[in-house]
Amino acid sequence: MECPLPVIGFVRTARTELERTPVQAGANRGEEGVLEIAQEYAEGLDGLAQFDYAWLLSWLDRPDRPLESLTQVPYLLRRERRRMGIFAMRGPRRPNPVGLSLVRLTAVIGTTVRFAGVDLLDGTPILDLKPYVARFDRPPGEPSSGWFDDVAVAEGTTPEDLAPPG
Amino acid sequence: MECPLPVIGFVRTARTELERTPVQAGANRGEEGVLEIAQEYAEGLDGLAQFDYAWLLSWLDRPDRPLESLTQVPYLLRRERRRMGIFAMRGPRRPNPVGLSLVRLTAVIGTTVRFAGVDLLDGTPILDLKPYVARFDRPPGEPSSGWFDDVAVAEGTTPEDLAPPG
Repeated sequence: MECPLPVIGFVRTARTELERTPVQAGANRGEEGVLEIAQEYAEGLDGLAQFDYAWLLSWLDRPDRPLESLTQVPYLLRRERRRMGIFAMRGPRRPNPVGLSLVRLTAVIGTTVRFAGVDLLDGTPILDLKPYVARFDRPPGEPSSGWFDDVAVAEGTTPEDLAPPG
Repeated sequence: MECPLPVIGFVRTARTELERTPVQAGANRGEEGVLEIAQEYAEGLDGLAQFDYAWLLSWLDRPDRPLESLTQVPYLLRRERRRMGIFAMRGPRRPNPVGLSLVRLTAVIGTTVRFAGVDLLDGTPILDLKPYVARFDRPPGEPSSGWFDDVAVAEGTTPEDLAPPG
């Protein structure tokens, strides 16, 4: 699935199959990955090393299947086989397959951004990198996260771990 | 600036000039806006009403000027005239002009999503809508937000408010 937007770089991770890739960076905070920014965009990293976290906006170029419906069974609801609207879930099959991953920055050196928090396949194209700014990105209090509040998510959970029995 | 991706809807806000539009939704939490989703995507909203917050991914189609450099003076550093790499700031002129706005959901009815937290011009195209999931989107502790930690941001601040003296 070719990306119609300029790609600023690619991630390198140890994951090569979607079924064996953690469902969210925030549910796999220990695993490390690397973002290699194209040389022409290197100057855009000035100042990033002072931040602890950043958002990766990625182009999810290898969906497991095409977008067939606007309601789907999220990985985390596979066992219950419950469907949700695509805008009430975080899965990769969306009208625009743009991923949003919160990663912890561990080093920014030259064109290399090292991070912890992996939910992307090796070689995923990156569209944008934005610093995490607590006062803008953290809502007050303990907001409801809808159906996510009713499911347990073990660290590092992958779709394969969530396959329904039988 | 035409959007090369499918647009799922448009926001309606009271803002029509970038210089008079708050710099971040999270710094303008009281103001209300409306997202009108195209009818063909309406089913994708199933389940969203149970969430308190969501991310709007927008196509920032009316930049004040073209992207001339990968380092820029952020609105919030106008007075100091300090430059930052575009990946260490949240401004609209980026290799991919995709905005990320955290909004509080106040009603989801039919194809209409009402929200609080406005940092978008009236008529801005929306690419995606993702639920805010606290356990994935909130880093632990009090992470550093780099240069943002050194600037005060009054509620509702616009670029115009931040013009350098003289």
